[in-house]
Amino acid sequence: MTQDERVADRQAAEEMPWGEVTPDAARRLLVAAVEAFAERGYHATTTRDIAGRAGMSPAALYIHYKTKEELLLRISRIGHEKALEILRHAADGEGDAADRLAEAVRSFVRWHAGHHTTARVVQYELDSLGAEHRPQIVELRRRSDAAVREIIESGVRSGEFDVPDVPGTTLAVLSLCIDVARWFNTEGRRTPDEVGALYADLVLRMVGAEPRPAVAQK
Amino acid sequence: MTQDERVADRQAAEEMPWGEVTPDAARRLLVAAVEAFAERGYHATTTRDIAGRAGMSPAALYIHYKTKEELLLRISRIGHEKALEILRHAADGEGDAADRLAEAVRSFVRWHAGHHTTARVVQYELDSLGAEHRPQIVELRRRSDAAVREIIESGVRSGEFDVPDVPGTTLAVLSLCIDVARWFNTEGRRTPDEVGALYADLVLRMVGAEPRPAVAQK
Repeated sequence: MTQDERVADRQAAEEMPWGEVTPDAARRLLVAAVEAFAERGYHATTTRDIAGRAGMSPAALYIHYKTKEELLLRISRIGHEKALEILRHAADGEGDAADRLAEAVRSFVRWHAGHHTTARVVQYELDSLGAEHRPQIVELRRRSDAAVREIIESGVRSGEFDVPDVPGTTLAVLSLCIDVARWFNTEGRRTPDEVGALYADLVLRMVGAEPRPAVAQK
Repeated sequence: MTQDERVADRQAAEEMPWGEVTPDAARRLLVAAVEAFAERGYHATTTRDIAGRAGMSPAALYIHYKTKEELLLRISRIGHEKALEILRHAADGEGDAADRLAEAVRSFVRWHAGHHTTARVVQYELDSLGAEHRPQIVELRRRSDAAVREIIESGVRSGEFDVPDVPGTTLAVLSLCIDVARWFNTEGRRTPDEVGALYADLVLRMVGAEPRPAVAQK
């Protein structure tokens, strides 16, 4: 796979987060579950509601998912895996620490703005997952956190950044981007790209780097 | 009322947001509703659940609240009024723009960390309010936004701040503080005061001001 193909692949994945879910019926059920959880909350949603939204019978649902929690776990895992993929891609990318941090913020914001319904379910229903499933999600979050911390630490080492509290600043950067999912639909008069550019600038200020123009899209 | 009494009053209000709700039974029901909504979501909670948590009968609940939505509206209004009060107090306070912005962030973060359960209900169940009730909450949010924007604008005018996008930066500052309610309980190894101090420093960087030590508590 060439670099261009990898970029195209990543952009497609960013646009269609459920592409990996097969067969088609399983994917339709997942999309229906995201909508139902976002509208009514996990606990107020029944598997019957989800099957109905997908135009299927409850019996057909059970072929693909044994429980409602299995649906939430699948949604949560895919959402967190995409988040990690986006942040890892930025951390492993070209350029200096400021380029990589700006790219992490831009793409992470774009994802939370563009997929705010999914992101809300993924972020706000975490406590609805049972204790046996939560550790795998917590581990994905730990790795997302590590990707951002790694960029900030490298900027501190190179002298590009001035950050007195690296773990606290890492937390704040991720938190700022994640909250886009809450307000984006209701108050936003900006495109996901515009919010991404604004936030990248604000985050570079938070780490004491010079703001810079957006890197041209490859 | 002296200045000291006003400060004491405000601190008491920050600690006990439901103090204004009387009689006692109405307050107990409100606290029970916050817990139930936070745990299971608004739509999965019945008035029977809420009455049960408060140790009362459903009939006793209807003396105080005609509908479940009336409870959510009351919670949401009180929460948003406290947020506005905190931000107005900072905007109208002493000191230069950086002092006032730092105080706004510190006290707003402290509220979201210290009352994260209430704050989650207030922030994440907004869409559960009917169309006839939402405008009063939207108006409170508009005024909270205006309080922060006012501080930032005054810092830009005085030359203390360098902010190319005032509305966008205002939104980001509020958003950063609000998201504290999401992560505070689960990942926080810091006290509300510590998060407030860290965030005040990060926000001063966002607006291009010099960081400064915390203002001594009066």
